[in-house]
Parts: sequence; C-alpha cells; structure tokens
Amino acid sequence: MAIVLGPNRYGKAETRLVSVARDGETHTLTDLNVSIALSGDLAATHLTGDNSGVLPTDTMKNTVYAFAKERGVGEPEQFALQLARHFVSTQSQIDKAHITIEAYGWERLGPHSFQRRGDHTRLAAVTVTAEQEQVVSGVTGLTLLNSTASEFHGYPKDRYTTLPETRDRILATAVDARWRHLTADGDWAGSFAGALEALTTAFANTYSHSLQQTLYAMGSYTLSQRPELAEVRLALPNKHHYLVDLSPFGLTNDNEVFIAGDRPYGLIEGTVIRDDAPPAGVEWYL
Amino acid sequence: MAIVLGPNRYGKAETRLVSVARDGETHTLTDLNVSIALSGDLAATHLTGDNSGVLPTDTMKNTVYAFAKERGVGEPEQFALQLARHFVSTQSQIDKAHITIEAYGWERLGPHSFQRRGDHTRLAAVTVTAEQEQVVSGVTGLTLLNSTASEFHGYPKDRYTTLPETRDRILATAVDARWRHLTADGDWAGSFAGALEALTTAFANTYSHSLQQTLYAMGSYTLSQRPELAEVRLALPNKHHYLVDLSPFGLTNDNEVFIAGDRPYGLIEGTVIRDDAPPAGVEWYL
Amino acid sequence: MAIVLGPNRYGKAETRLVSVARDGETHTLTDLNVSIALSGDLAATHLTGDNSGVLPTDTMKNTVYAFAKERGVGEPEQFALQLARHFVSTQSQIDKAHITIEAYGWERLGPHSFQRRGDHTRLAAVTVTAEQEQVVSGVTGLTLLNSTASEFHGYPKDRYTTLPETRDRILATAVDARWRHLTADGDWAGSFAGALEALTTAFANTYSHSLQQTLYAMGSYTLSQRPELAEVRLALPNKHHYLVDLSPFGLTNDNEVFIAGDRPYGLIEGTVIRDDAPPAGVEWYL
Amino acid sequence: MAIVLGPNRYGKAETRLVSVARDGETHTLTDLNVSIALSGDLAATHLTGDNSGVLPTDTMKNTVYAFAKERGVGEPEQFALQLARHFVSTQSQIDKAHITIEAYGWERLGPHSFQRRGDHTRLAAVTVTAEQEQVVSGVTGLTLLNSTASEFHGYPKDRYTTLPETRDRILATAVDARWRHLTADGDWAGSFAGALEALTTAFANTYSHSLQQTLYAMGSYTLSQRPELAEVRLALPNKHHYLVDLSPFGLTNDNEVFIAGDRPYGLIEGTVIRDDAPPAGVEWYL
Repeated sequence: MAIVLGPNRYGKAETRLVSVARDGETHTLTDLNVSIALSGDLAATHLTGDNSGVLPTDTMKNTVYAFAKERGVGEPEQFALQLARHFVSTQSQIDKAHITIEAYGWERLGPHSFQRRGDHTRLAAVTVTAEQEQVVSGVTGLTLLNSTASEFHGYPKDRYTTLPETRDRILATAVDARWRHLTADGDWAGSFAGALEALTTAFANTYSHSLQQTLYAMGSYTLSQRPELAEVRLALPNKHHYLVDLSPFGLTNDNEVFIAGDRPYGLIEGTVIRDDAPPAGVEWYL
Repeated sequence: MAIVLGPNRYGKAETRLVSVARDGETHTLTDLNVSIALSGDLAATHLTGDNSGVLPTDTMKNTVYAFAKERGVGEPEQFALQLARHFVSTQSQIDKAHITIEAYGWERLGPHSFQRRGDHTRLAAVTVTAEQEQVVSGVTGLTLLNSTASEFHGYPKDRYTTLPETRDRILATAVDARWRHLTADGDWAGSFAGALEALTTAFANTYSHSLQQTLYAMGSYTLSQRPELAEVRLALPNKHHYLVDLSPFGLTNDNEVFIAGDRPYGLIEGTVIRDDAPPAGVEWYL
Repeated sequence: MAIVLGPNRYGKAETRLVSVARDGETHTLTDLNVSIALSGDLAATHLTGDNSGVLPTDTMKNTVYAFAKERGVGEPEQFALQLARHFVSTQSQIDKAHITIEAYGWERLGPHSFQRRGDHTRLAAVTVTAEQEQVVSGVTGLTLLNSTASEFHGYPKDRYTTLPETRDRILATAVDARWRHLTADGDWAGSFAGALEALTTAFANTYSHSLQQTLYAMGSYTLSQRPELAEVRLALPNKHHYLVDLSPFGLTNDNEVFIAGDRPYGLIEGTVIRDDAPPAGVEWYL
Repeated sequence: MAIVLGPNRYGKAETRLVSVARDGETHTLTDLNVSIALSGDLAATHLTGDNSGVLPTDTMKNTVYAFAKERGVGEPEQFALQLARHFVSTQSQIDKAHITIEAYGWERLGPHSFQRRGDHTRLAAVTVTAEQEQVVSGVTGLTLLNSTASEFHGYPKDRYTTLPETRDRILATAVDARWRHLTADGDWAGSFAGALEALTTAFANTYSHSLQQTLYAMGSYTLSQRPELAEVRLALPNKHHYLVDLSPFGLTNDNEVFIAGDRPYGLIEGTVIRDDAPPAGVEWYL
C-alpha cells in the first residue's frame, strides 16, 4: 500500500470585476465575481514543489481583467467560456477548466447612475475540456413567499412527531437553482430571463401540499418553457414562519401574525430532468 | 471613591415579525425586525438581583406579536411609537423606551405571492419619555454608483501620499442614513418614500469633487424637499473601484475595467441640519 | 421525451443542540449543529403532494433532541450514526440518511463555566444505507500561518503574468478538510485529535515551494499517522499577504509589513488517498 | 432658516496590517485592523468640493503601513496614539483624530508558525485633540456560558407575560466591552490581560439572578482589580438556551437538553464607573 495524490485542482477565487461600457453618454455596468479552477497533470508541484506547470493564480486574475478589455465582458456564460477555453488551450498541463461567475444586478437611475439590486444573484458555471463544453446557469438569493395556498398534512407520525397538520400556512424559500444547457451556444441573456421568470411564476402559481411539490413544479415548468435546458437542480430551504400562539393574551390568530424563524430550517433538494437528455459530461452539484 | 452603576438599559433585540393583512383574496405583507431597549430605575437588579422592576424581555417579544394583532402593524414609525408609549406608560420603573425597527421590502408577484427585495432596508428609531417623543427614520444597504462625473484632486500631499489625482473615477457607496422628524406625527410612508427619492436623486445628479460634497448634497437636497425633517445624518463608505493597470498586457484602460475593493474603504460621515430646528432631545447616533 | 424527477433528498438543517452532562458539580458541555438529509422513494410528494412517505422535518428535529436525552450525545460521529440508522431502519420510504454535524469547542473555566473557542469547528458527516455506513470527519475554520519557509517560483509565465518570484513569503490558509474512515467503528475523539494534530504539525514543519506541496504534505502525513483513515480531502484558500511597497516613503520592507488581502484568493483543492483503500461507497465532496 | 453642515468626520476604515517582527529564528506576529476618523474644519470640501484641507484616506492607509515599519507596531493602544497624534499635529485642518484598532490573536505553533485564535478580539479606541488624549480598550466576541448558577424570577407580570420563572438556567453571552483608562500612559498589554481575566472570572464566579447582576459584577470587579481604569461599559446579549420540552416523548429534561436560539435575544447594556473619575472628555459609545 502507498499514500498517493488523488483528484486535485487549483485556481483563483473571487476576482471582483466591474466593467463600464460607454456608449456615448450612456454607460452600461457589469459587476462580476469570477472564480477559476484548473485541473490536469499537477502532480509535480504537490510531490516536489516543482512549479513548472503551475500558472500562477495571480496570472488567472490578470487574465480576467485583460479579457474584459480585449474581448468585452458580455454575458457571464460567454465570458466564462472564453476564459475556460483560453486556459485549456494555452496551458499544456491543464486539461480541464471550471469557471464560476456570480453576476450582481444594478438598476439604472440615469445615464451613468445605478442602484444595486439585491433580489437575486445570477450564476454561470462552465466546464471545458478538449472533448466537451458544459454550461450551467443559475440563481441564488431569490427569496419567494406565498402567504397562503400552502398546506401540509397526511404525513406519517412516529413517536417523535408533534407537528400539527395545517391547511393554510406561509410557504417561503430562498431559491438556489442551477440549470444545465444542452449546448454551449445560446442566447444567454434571454435564457436566463426566461428561466427566472418560469421559476418565479411556477412558485407563485402552484397550490402546494409540500415544498417538494413546489420544487417539482418549478423545475418541470422551467424545462417545459425552456427547450434549451437539459435539467434543473433546486435547493429550497423551507424558511419557516411559525404562527404565534396569541391565546394567552385572549386573541385569535387567523394566519396573520408569524415568527420568521432563522434555524433550523427544512431543506428540500431535487433535480428535474428531461429523460432524453444526455447525462452531464462532467459531474456537478448544485 | 466608590464603584457605582452608570447609565444602563435592557430589552429584547431582533424580534422577527411577519404580518399578513388579508383584504379578501389580496394579501399585504409586513416584514419587520423589532428591537426594544428600556431604561429607568433599574439599579436593584444590577446590585442585588432583585427583579421586581424588570419586565422580562420575553414579555416585550410577546407584546410585539400581540400588538401586531390588536392594533395592526402599519408604518414602522407608528408601530414603534405605540410600543414605546406602552412600555413607558405601563412600567413604573421605566422612564424611557427606545424602539428600533428594520423593515424589509417585498415586491408583489400576485394576490398572495411576493419576492423579497434586497435593494435597501427601511429603518425607524423612536425614543419616548414622559416629556417627549423623538422619531428618526432611515435607510441602510442602499448601494449607489456613478460611473463618471466624479473627480478627486487638489488635496494636500505629505510624505506618505502616493494617490494620483483623478478627473474621472467611479463613485460608489452603500448609503446608511438617518433623518430626524420635527414632530411625532406624520405621513410616515410618504415621508420615507420622499426622503429615499431625494437621497437617490441627489446622488445621481451631483457632479462630485469629493464624497463629502456628495454627502452634503444628499443631505441638503433631502431637507429642502422634506419640510417635516430637522436633520439628516449620513455614513457613506467610499466603495473604492480601482482602475486596473493593463499596460503590462499592452492594453489601455480608459476607465473601463475596475477592481471592486473590499477593504480598506473610505468612510465619510456627516450631518446636515436645519439651523432653526430644535436640537435633538435625546442623543442619537447614526 | 418527458420531464421527470431526478435525484432528490430532504431534511432538517441546522438544528442547534446544546447538551449539559452533569457529573456531580462538574458539568460537561456539548454544542452541536445537526443537519439531516434523507432520500428514498419520495416521488409521490413531488408529483402529487401525497405526503404519506414524508416524515416531517420537524420530527427529525425532535428526534435530535430526544436522542440527546435517551442515548446521550457523545462523539459527533457516533451521534450521527445513531440518527442515520434510526431513520433508515424506521422509515420504509427512506433508504439513505446523510447526517452532518458541526461541533463547537468550549474551554473549561470552572466546574460549570465555559468559554467558547473559535480556533476551529469539528465536523462529522455520516451516510447510512442498508448496505453500508460511511463516516467522514473533518475540520473547518482552522487558520494557520507560516511567516517564512515559503517560496514560490519556477512557474510558467505567459502574456498575462506579472507576479514576481519570491524566495520568502507568508503562507497562510484557513484549512477546510475532510477525512474518510475505513470503518464505522472507531475511537472518534482520539482519531479527531490525532488528525488535527497531524494536519497542524505538517503545515508548520513543511518548507513550502507551493501551497499544493503543503497540501500534499498535510494529507500524506495525516494518513501516515492515522491508519484508520482511507483518504483526506483538503480545500486550502491561499490567504494572500501582500508585501507593502514602502519605497515611496524611503523605507525598505524586509518581509516585515504586509497587507492581509480579502479577495481574490488562491484556492487549492486536493485529495490524498491510500491506494489500497476501497473507494468511497457514497460520493461525497468536501 | 437655512440648511447647514453639522458635525462630520472622515477617514480610512479597516486597513488590514500584518506585521512580522524577526528576532533571529523566532518571529512575532501582529494582526490588526485599523480604522481612522479625522475631524476639524472640513466645510470647504462639503460645500464646494475644495479638497485643499482633505488629506486623502489613501494617505492614511499608507501612514499605517509606514509607521509599522518606522516605529514598530507594539501594543494597539500605543500604535493608535502615535497615529492619532501624527494626524492632529501635521494636518492644520484637523483638530481631532479617532483611531480604532481590532487586534486578532494568534497562538504560537513553532518559531515561525501560528494558529489563529478565535475566542475574542482585542480592541483599542483612541481619541486625540490638542487638549487631551483619551484611551479606551475593550474586547468583543468573548462568548461565555454558565451551565447552572443562574436564576430568573421575581419579575413583574403583565397581560403579555408568559415566561415561567426558573431557578436553574443556562446563562450565556457574547461579551462586548470597553473600558476607559484614566491616563494615556500605561502597561497596555498587562492592563488588557488583567481586564480580560477580571471580566471572565467575575462571569464564572457570579451566582446570577439576572444578566444585569452579572453585568454589574463583571464591571465592578474589573474596576476593583484595575486601578488604571475609570469606567467599564458592557453590552451583553442574552444568548438564550431554551429547555426542550421532552414530555411528548415520555422523557424528562432535567436541564440537560437545550435549543441554542439565534433571535430574538435579550440585550443588556450598562456602565460601571468610578465615582471620582473625571468624565469622559470625548463622548464614546459602546
């Protein structure tokens, strides 16, 4: 038996890029957080400290800024693809590049004035090898709430069950979602806007008997609306809102007054997939 | 000489209240974080552990929820005033109540469906004694950016100065502001919306030679638009965006590509005041 | 083609349990954050909202607290195994349970007095099915720094490389590590203490030419010291400390004065494995 | 009436300084977060954008790094005093400097190896004008817990009170404390160590009927042990640990199993003062 090096990768995480495109008086703002992870034949640096195949992570950071100028930033999926292809094609030691980008939204206030939105963060995650290119898009921090149209009952009760069944509750979640594209070409902006709209619409329109049912509705409706997607993965924390017992104060509480809980929270995770889609070439997890 | 008890207060912090008002099919959502601090003759519990004057903080929490049902929540300033008056008038040991509320915004998606906004948090801070009521409103987490129309030069240089002067830079800040009302009556919703609009407008419209100049413009414009306000206090972090030096790569950077820095940051704090306004009856700091 | 449900799981996350064991006057404190994820035949709730197989996550929370009393908490790996076995053996719909625990350390100040440590968080992650039990332990938030004995040079330079080579730098990282046990029996406390000691010792004693070299040294030394372990996975952010250029002030900087950077940071991830160990039965990622 | 500029200040916040002192093979590490706020005659920049009196905050940052080399860092109170005096004495526009420093602790692992502690952060806050120098030290993030020797009863009950009285509970808090020194000279390291020891000892040794009683005990004991201090201010969140009701499961809970709550929390704030101490020359809070 021996002790050996297993899978590994390295890169620069969280390079913060703000890019201003000037179209006369009117400016456009792009605000990204770019993370790069490269893998390949990197045994030498691990075993002997020989760095002859280790492009510095500082160079990766520089490349992000230089590409922003040379090629423009554009949509995050496209920017990530350009970066990934660059590293795989120019670094002989590297056979896989994984780029993830967080994109922060800004609302226009004037020709060169902006207010940061905080209602969601757009995500892109791209993996490139010599053989394939896989593009995943997503969203995080999208917090949705239905103040009714949610029930929860019919569940098994064991010795430790005390939860009362309910026919009317608040259902709230902070959506963390990723969806895999069938190809590495696309109308990235349109696809993202459409998927976000589909997720939000399905959440609002689903009469829910469980957050799992809502999850499946969100994923399946998104796939039905977006033929360019192979699968959708969702992680939905159940942001519990506890009905306050007002009876000690001689008051009734007809689903009006709630405690917004922090922890613990339910966590519902699931995948909805097109059954004829090719499997993911590179493993990924939400 | 002796060791003695000085100023003190106590209360329940961060009671999370979500309230649903049902107007037929259409629901309205209020999402608050309420903190209560009471002061008065509280020496006994400090010195001997005699709690006969110490209303439990758990009771304060219960009061928040019960009031939400009994009186409705309404605007945060009004809800804070009701809570503060209640504690001062019912607890003989207590002569001052200070209530602060954070209010989180939600955008309507449907009759009972909502998406949480993240572009700012509304604040209310109320202090009530037998003699007076002071109402302060505010905002935090409002992040604004001008991609041009900002210069910085003409400053003193000492031995430690290396900063180059600039005639064009990004100016960005996360506004943390509080404004004091002249009276404890008001159209709280209208006043908040107006002040927020004034702050945002002044930021966007000010051609800036320093963040201090922008701060003063924001405060003075807000006072000019809102006659119900006595003063405005602002804490404006200068969220630095560093121009990337692309010359090693043979590229120019005409204010297009920036590093968004985390730390350190400039911090500009200031007050703009109506010179005939009565001074704050109770001290407060942003 | 059809849209179908793919892999899924659900559970209660972040149940906060503090347990006090009283041995006469002397108390012992256990402080855990327990997360539970169950998977199995859960299609019905997703597709139709039929919850007949969905044990409420509230029940999972109750089970954590009841088990703490009934069985005692003990070591986190053992507590997680008990919980996981319970859910798999009692819920017919469930064929896999994944339990993760964060354990927070407290230092004793007296027989019933404690001060919370903050130098690391201990982790346990257990997966149980009918066929197997997999135990992973780990640590997060362990921040280590060598103020010398670190070099970085000999790396490839491309068009975007500007980093100067260095023969003396600060090497700092916040260790995030997981190690897989060969069996589901063990001296969990002794194993954790030994692995932590091995990781820390290897970091301090390795003269480093790259953080990758340090990573491999940490993993391989830990395996060499702990025969009960199959593999070690490490994610090591390179917490950059930038040498300040003091030359504009007429000063030299002999590796004395540094800027501690926030973002971006290098991120080095790798696995060190015993080559005759059976592969992980259940996939896991750091 | 007119709208005018009120109190204001500006500076550089959160300059992160790591300094390595080399005594042969043995290194010593200092890890600080330095924030600077200057005030004086700054009307011009606010009103007209005239920056002739505005030393750039970038220069303040440079000064921190240059002073670390030129003068050494030493104790944070001393380093803060040197910086404050420098700005007041060299900038004609500035009449007051307020410097705050957070100091992070590291434990030695070897001659040049360190592990970051996380059990508390040391604080220094210094205010310097032409007339006076005020030094405040403090601590934050010091989390303490007594698993017994805490009661809470005898409090008033109103219509909204539901809390049961208790003769045995967990008392836990995250200490946020500041103490004012009588002079600007001192054995800063010894004073801090002594104050920290006094606070911790008093917490552990006080049989508590309220967190207020514990607060007063902590403050008064610290003053009794440290003659160099004028006053101690404490903000103590009551980190509630709720006894779990295990009776639905047929189990008793003799103060063994607790839920560690996040929000809401009690917040107890108070000052303990030497009655013959001169008042604070410059207002400060906490």
